[in-house]
Amino acid sequence: MAAVVAKLLAAFLAVLAVSGAAAWDVKLELDDGMPLIHMLRPLLSTGGHLGRKGRVPCDSWRFAVETNTLRGWKTIPARCEKYVGNYMMGGHYRSDSRAVVNEAIAYAEGLKLSGNGNEVWVFDVDETTLSNLPYYAKHGFGAEPYNWTTFGNYVQEANAPALPETMRLYKRLQALGIKPVILTGRREDKREATAKNLASEGYTGYEKLLLKPQDVKVHSVEFKSGERKKLEDAGYVIVGNIGDQWTDLLGEPEGARTFKLPDPMYYIG
Amino acid sequence: MAAVVAKLLAAFLAVLAVSGAAAWDVKLELDDGMPLIHMLRPLLSTGGHLGRKGRVPCDSWRFAVETNTLRGWKTIPARCEKYVGNYMMGGHYRSDSRAVVNEAIAYAEGLKLSGNGNEVWVFDVDETTLSNLPYYAKHGFGAEPYNWTTFGNYVQEANAPALPETMRLYKRLQALGIKPVILTGRREDKREATAKNLASEGYTGYEKLLLKPQDVKVHSVEFKSGERKKLEDAGYVIVGNIGDQWTDLLGEPEGARTFKLPDPMYYIG
Repeated sequence: MAAVVAKLLAAFLAVLAVSGAAAWDVKLELDDGMPLIHMLRPLLSTGGHLGRKGRVPCDSWRFAVETNTLRGWKTIPARCEKYVGNYMMGGHYRSDSRAVVNEAIAYAEGLKLSGNGNEVWVFDVDETTLSNLPYYAKHGFGAEPYNWTTFGNYVQEANAPALPETMRLYKRLQALGIKPVILTGRREDKREATAKNLASEGYTGYEKLLLKPQDVKVHSVEFKSGERKKLEDAGYVIVGNIGDQWTDLLGEPEGARTFKLPDPMYYIG
Repeated sequence: MAAVVAKLLAAFLAVLAVSGAAAWDVKLELDDGMPLIHMLRPLLSTGGHLGRKGRVPCDSWRFAVETNTLRGWKTIPARCEKYVGNYMMGGHYRSDSRAVVNEAIAYAEGLKLSGNGNEVWVFDVDETTLSNLPYYAKHGFGAEPYNWTTFGNYVQEANAPALPETMRLYKRLQALGIKPVILTGRREDKREATAKNLASEGYTGYEKLLLKPQDVKVHSVEFKSGERKKLEDAGYVIVGNIGDQWTDLLGEPEGARTFKLPDPMYYIG
């Protein structure tokens, strides 16, 4: 028992040391093996709210977000900024993404392909192929209201890193002979920057890059399911569909299987 | 800093003390204010697996389960039995359920009702109105393969407790004038036990109790969406739909809003 306590205390001290240092660094170079930060921080940042009516711990808020129960929210709860920051930066986000991609790869490897090369896999962009964590880390991890100007400028810089798990899936699918189709709610004025960013991060050889028309008012589900329908009508078979928003994954035709990546930072309706 | 460390250490010791005691007691009488057990236990039960290829922490496995990425699984991973047990018994399950029900109530309170009394809300039974945790706590929290006989016997005993959060929603909806409809994958031979159990737990005054026909082979999504269609055809408006399985919530007509309760113990396809 004493040994266990000493070990746990050492872990705690390590966390305290890390949390004061560079954990908020914007570069996405996190080691996979760091579950401690996110697991322990909630005790500091939200544990005290538990008893209050209407308030739930930030991880329960996240549960309701990720399961599409909470909809239409504009910002994360202010009290959850540290929790979400730790989730995103502390390894938990990466391991949740890994769980999803592991399953996607296992599924893809089990498919019997036609041999016609007509199988495609639909990828979303933001928080799916590319990570905007460098931007969001500077803007409260979703605690600040969405800012079209600053985020638009960030996108035009074309410097977003790949989400490593999605890259792993992308490369594996290509090796299997399944063609990636990129389908994003970004509008056409972001085409050049998006293509440049994808290419510089290693997303090459995709079948299509589909963006929202510049001036058309259309909700995400309608736009994305419409584009998937066009793919099917053109003879493609959508064997998989991966994205961080439910609006990427709902609306017929969804694709034969859908894969929900984590995103507790923002909601797209 | 020293004070913080002392406080955290005290919390740790409290957890260690609790974990050796009656945390596995089967009766569902847990205090809401106990986030410590579930948050810290993963360090003991799953932290060691993080680096291994293909393995993810149990909370990332749970993420993939709850977001409908992992499908068709028969049992929880053996290494996650303690994690799931702690999740279910340690307050986390209840606070996740609370996050969902808080949102459901806020949504319901914001509805403008027709005044015709035709609005209904669809409730699933297992792990929604009623909790089978007393059964699952004795059967590895989903680590043991599903056993038709023992679970069937448990259902016939009609002793499952209400999930308190769902009961709170149920009563609030009735006060607002929204009629509950109970829609379950349990078959007709469980009608008497189910009705008895619901009544004894306080679920009274529902509009309908719909069970699966005894000998018809039909998947959950097909059965449940078919029953919801019949409700709409009969003039009801399904303003809400709550369940623990995605098969409760997918398939048109889904209902105007869906609410996903947690369930990391089993999968129904």
